Amino acid sequence: MKKINWYPPIILGLLALLVITFGALVVSRASLGPAQQFAEGTGQETFQWKLVTTWPKNFPGLGSAPERFAKKVEEMSAGRLKIKVYGAGELVPAMGVFGAVSEGAAQMGHGAAYYWKGKLPAAQFFTAVPFGLNAQEMNGWLHHGGGLELWEELYAPFNLIPMAGGSTGVQMAGWFNKEINSVEDLKGLKMRIPGLGGEVLNRAGGTAVTIPGGELYTALQTGVIDATEWVGPYNDLAFGFHQIAEYYYYPGWHEPGSILEFIINKSAFEKLPGDLQAIVRAAARDANQDMLDEYTARNNRALKELVDKHGVQLKRLPDEVLAHLKTINTEILEETAAEDPQFARIYEAFREFEAQVIPYHRISEEAYYQTRLLELDQ
Amino acid sequence: MKKINWYPPIILGLLALLVITFGALVVSRASLGPAQQFAEGTGQETFQWKLVTTWPKNFPGLGSAPERFAKKVEEMSAGRLKIKVYGAGELVPAMGVFGAVSEGAAQMGHGAAYYWKGKLPAAQFFTAVPFGLNAQEMNGWLHHGGGLELWEELYAPFNLIPMAGGSTGVQMAGWFNKEINSVEDLKGLKMRIPGLGGEVLNRAGGTAVTIPGGELYTALQTGVIDATEWVGPYNDLAFGFHQIAEYYYYPGWHEPGSILEFIINKSAFEKLPGDLQAIVRAAARDANQDMLDEYTARNNRALKELVDKHGVQLKRLPDEVLAHLKTINTEILEETAAEDPQFARIYEAFREFEAQVIPYHRISEEAYYQTRLLELDQ
Repeated sequence: MKKINWYPPIILGLLALLVITFGALVVSRASLGPAQQFAEGTGQETFQWKLVTTWPKNFPGLGSAPERFAKKVEEMSAGRLKIKVYGAGELVPAMGVFGAVSEGAAQMGHGAAYYWKGKLPAAQFFTAVPFGLNAQEMNGWLHHGGGLELWEELYAPFNLIPMAGGSTGVQMAGWFNKEINSVEDLKGLKMRIPGLGGEVLNRAGGTAVTIPGGELYTALQTGVIDATEWVGPYNDLAFGFHQIAEYYYYPGWHEPGSILEFIINKSAFEKLPGDLQAIVRAAARDANQDMLDEYTARNNRALKELVDKHGVQLKRLPDEVLAHLKTINTEILEETAAEDPQFARIYEAFREFEAQVIPYHRISEEAYYQTRLLELDQ
Repeated sequence: MKKINWYPPIILGLLALLVITFGALVVSRASLGPAQQFAEGTGQETFQWKLVTTWPKNFPGLGSAPERFAKKVEEMSAGRLKIKVYGAGELVPAMGVFGAVSEGAAQMGHGAAYYWKGKLPAAQFFTAVPFGLNAQEMNGWLHHGGGLELWEELYAPFNLIPMAGGSTGVQMAGWFNKEINSVEDLKGLKMRIPGLGGEVLNRAGGTAVTIPGGELYTALQTGVIDATEWVGPYNDLAFGFHQIAEYYYYPGWHEPGSILEFIINKSAFEKLPGDLQAIVRAAARDANQDMLDEYTARNNRALKELVDKHGVQLKRLPDEVLAHLKTINTEILEETAAEDPQFARIYEAFREFEAQVIPYHRISEEAYYQTRLLELDQ
């Protein structure tokens, strides 16, 4: 799952720089004024919000969460809070979402925190850490392990309130036109893989590239890249990668349980009466769970179609390769922590929670998965 | 996690029989009347609901879900729907919850569907099936795999609407004072284990017994039973089983991802305006996710305390034993399906979803858990 750019990176970068740097300063009551009015006669205030997203409108799975959220809020508020959802590029480009919500051009956004790692390296902890927590564990950390409070602190200077906005579950390692049998095969591998995963690949001797979603198919088809990761079977089938790639690798070591985000302009949120604030929070929680449920229910059907109908070759990355990537990943996390105190602080909390959750999941979730695969006796 | 009876089983049984058999017939608008009134001046109707539970008031984890639910509903509705939570035995006994909500003595209940298996064997599919789906998969099945619709159909004749009401995650196999090294050791084992798990144990040569929560500690201490299952570290530590049992076995083959339930009297629900109905649904979804998040975050800390501080001996059930229990479990499910068309229909849907979800989880969640445990290279 990655950023989808429709605008040249330089313009995008400048825009992001502008809105992120100055966003928090220019928010004013006036800028949010039109979102708020009194319903005639009832005495109850009504609100009209804009929700900008980093996905194309109604993108399967990822893009359905903000639609569901908006619908639920409208139902629960009996129309007092109406939220219009904009796909990427409709109101602001995908990578302009953070800035637009920060400055109040839109009241809400839906995307993924690791898109903002250029400004906030620590934001990556709130989407996915390679070899880190899976979806169930991320939700445990955010909602009962202190994670959400750290996220709120990180975004507070930008006048933003973050909330978990869905999860894809464990992703796939990606589509490859080159077999990976040893760490040697990573050398020279040109792969589209963003974030920490990309840094890990670079240090393993490969070349991580950033290619907008719209150009990805052609890049893989023409050999500009050897491989690309995307999300998982449900999204990948729709994309058509099976037509142009030989191997479908697992497991998704780089994104073990990516969490998406809702971001809300803090000034806009504070203007809502308490009942509408509670409604917004519950609708986000509802959408957060519903996306994982949807991926859980739909990934396998898509995988079956990919394998049975389209003859996709499923392959597991060798243990040697995974262990090598894991070592590099730890090095990078520790180096980044040494340079960035904010990153270091959240990394420490993240690791502490990992130490809290992993041993129990070893004897519960993991031991159970193994049990289920036991051959029957007789 | 089991039923907690404070009333003698015979009275309970008679009560349950009465309320379940006649409940649907006696519901009337009148019986729900006092729950509904108009707030003075505002023109908006307000509602007062009772929510009866199968747990003691504020029981950790399980009992906090209905409290959270009630609080969220009150906030979101700005006090228009107030819900008072009653612990087991305060208004009706634990096992009287289904009947009380069915007949309208309370508008809502919180418990677990498999408690009603005496009346509705198929209800067990909506809590836990041995060797079946884990929490993430159950949520996928219920919310995007057709499971909830089957559950609604099952409860409709009782004037009840069911919703998922939290999950414990994979449970522990239980506390034992007898080592289990082979299938031979199951013979003569006296264990408190309800539901399908208990039937499996009986057929394996053991004796499944039902003992109310309040008598469990003494029964295990005095050797009346050799073993008991309960929930997992977070709840078990509070119970004090480590003081009287030698071994703590895993994995929880009998309850791989128990889902709890909210049940709502259909007539009461239909009296709510659309916004309050949507609020009730979202608050249930919120509580459903929050409980799993809480268990995920807290189980491991409790496990660590049990092992490090109290010297508990963790043991894994041998593969031979698990495979034997799995074979018996399949036999029982198939025999029950042959006798009960309703059970058969839901069993078929459940198996179909298993076939949809298990292969992808094998290469995603499970492969990822394994990857995380790889030794680092060098």
